[in-house]
Amino acid sequence: MKKPKPKLALKEKEGVSPPEIISASVVENIQQFRKVQPSAKELVEGILEGNITALSRAITLVESTNSEHLAKANEVINACLPFANKSVRIGITGVPGVGKSTFIEAFGKYLTGLGKKVAVLAVDPSSTISHGSILGDKTRMEELVKDENAYIRPSASGETLGGVARKTRETITLCEAAGFDTIIIETVGVGQSETAVHSMVDFFLLLKISGAGDELQGIKRGIMEMADAIVINKADGDNIKKAKLAKTEFNRALHLFPAKKSGWMPTVSTCSSYTKEGIDEVWKTISDYLELTQNNHYFAEKRSSQSQYWMLETINEQLKNNFFNHPEIQHLLEENKKAVQNNKVSPFAAASILLEKYFKG
Amino acid sequence: MKKPKPKLALKEKEGVSPPEIISASVVENIQQFRKVQPSAKELVEGILEGNITALSRAITLVESTNSEHLAKANEVINACLPFANKSVRIGITGVPGVGKSTFIEAFGKYLTGLGKKVAVLAVDPSSTISHGSILGDKTRMEELVKDENAYIRPSASGETLGGVARKTRETITLCEAAGFDTIIIETVGVGQSETAVHSMVDFFLLLKISGAGDELQGIKRGIMEMADAIVINKADGDNIKKAKLAKTEFNRALHLFPAKKSGWMPTVSTCSSYTKEGIDEVWKTISDYLELTQNNHYFAEKRSSQSQYWMLETINEQLKNNFFNHPEIQHLLEENKKAVQNNKVSPFAAASILLEKYFKG
Repeated sequence: MKKPKPKLALKEKEGVSPPEIISASVVENIQQFRKVQPSAKELVEGILEGNITALSRAITLVESTNSEHLAKANEVINACLPFANKSVRIGITGVPGVGKSTFIEAFGKYLTGLGKKVAVLAVDPSSTISHGSILGDKTRMEELVKDENAYIRPSASGETLGGVARKTRETITLCEAAGFDTIIIETVGVGQSETAVHSMVDFFLLLKISGAGDELQGIKRGIMEMADAIVINKADGDNIKKAKLAKTEFNRALHLFPAKKSGWMPTVSTCSSYTKEGIDEVWKTISDYLELTQNNHYFAEKRSSQSQYWMLETINEQLKNNFFNHPEIQHLLEENKKAVQNNKVSPFAAASILLEKYFKG
Repeated sequence: MKKPKPKLALKEKEGVSPPEIISASVVENIQQFRKVQPSAKELVEGILEGNITALSRAITLVESTNSEHLAKANEVINACLPFANKSVRIGITGVPGVGKSTFIEAFGKYLTGLGKKVAVLAVDPSSTISHGSILGDKTRMEELVKDENAYIRPSASGETLGGVARKTRETITLCEAAGFDTIIIETVGVGQSETAVHSMVDFFLLLKISGAGDELQGIKRGIMEMADAIVINKADGDNIKKAKLAKTEFNRALHLFPAKKSGWMPTVSTCSSYTKEGIDEVWKTISDYLELTQNNHYFAEKRSSQSQYWMLETINEQLKNNFFNHPEIQHLLEENKKAVQNNKVSPFAAASILLEKYFKG
């Protein structure tokens, strides 16, 4: 005898007519709405009105790999550009464990309390592997996520650093056009991501905690030199004394570096994301920086050179991609790499061989 | 009345027959020899025998912009490669005034005294403007220039840094094939030349002097982090005390940097090129470094990755040159730079327009 088929929950409505209350026209309306993608013009209008749904949809287009989406994204961005640029862009970095999320939560809440509109983005090319190590879990910023003057968007993923950087920078433009006047970009000390973030912000903040022993260990080469401010987090309870010691040590270290083009002398301060002590001082520091660099025109010059940088950087990256993905080059490259390795050919002669092939076929 | 034409020295031999002692056949022989360029094979043979004339001629080919010369140079280099690589390559940098020439003279003499064969090269892309600011005047190394175990070659000029770097690196190969076991490459703190030199040497030495006030001012960003040793020169007479103080300060600063991949902890020492005090210690330091990095295989790994670096770097540079020198791109680039500047188009959209033009015409 055949076993009776188990009744599946999904099949429960089989043979049941839809209740009269769901009219066919309503269903059609909803489906219609879902299918119709807003036009670029509609998105731009929505963004300029500060509509978060329009903003999020536009960012999704920016993050798409579909070329049609990309064309539409470019249209939206170019239309938003004249309304962007009126913000302060703050980069925040620090190794895992320094409390970036709690700091951004406390700092973001402080800023919205001042009447500011805060967008929090992330650059984390590793997020495909680590499944969103930063900002992936919005629950770590549970206060800020509920704040209607804050907008949190995790890192674009599945890409090279160049790709993530492009998407983040376009997202900045969209957020600014939507009226966000303070853009926070979080990154984590992996490879070149700090350099990328440094090249898209006005102010770069290194978050640290006081630890046992040498405070300066574990700082990646070059990060110290990039920082406009070092903030020692978790300066509360038993930690306060250690944090103050760390502050002295960092201050001494910073004085060893040559002066910055901005004319700004990097600062060191302590704060607690828990007691909120020192959070206001961070904003005070950034305000001082803005005043100095807007007066000496460094602010505008830096933004302008950052734009040029990203244009040229994108070109360079694409030229390399085209070369190294060329099928005939790939084989020849391996051959020449080996020959160089074994001192059969000089690096420059090998380069000539490859370039000849590429340009002359 | 016409004034009599003054008798010019150059015209003195007018009407004078050549003395009989210069036979026509000798003249012909000399002229013949001058005209005949040695073949690539002859140059290689000469170089491997340690013939300085052959070496100098080959370097001249490397420095030539003539494509025929370049092809011949490549032939010579590739033939020399299997005999190269058996040396220690030392980069020396320091701002003007620290006494690089006198240090290299004293250090070079010390090394030839140990039975070493020393080649001194320079990377100075500014030399076209400054008419050879370093090594241009060999008289500043008057002892070393007379030493038959030393070979001094000024920086290749009239070129971009990339060009000068390529020529210097090929010259290293030729010098090594000619039996030079210690290659010193001098550079001066202009722009990116330190980075280029750092990428072609085994050991990087920063030369300093003790000055009034803060010893660390005036060091370019990143140079401290590159240094395997800091040597404080001119530690003689009244300077000894100041030099010792400077040593302490540098030592403290170096400890602030993260550990090097080589496993080597950078050293600080003092020396006097005048009294020769401390010159032997510099060589001792380099010997210690060599022992460490040869044992932990970092030495070979670094050389290998340097070769790969120069191959890829040359390719990247040529790809960019080809793009930016493209006549249609040049005009479009200016247009797009302006559009980016005026927020009419995003840097990425501008890059797309340019790349489309380049690849699709």
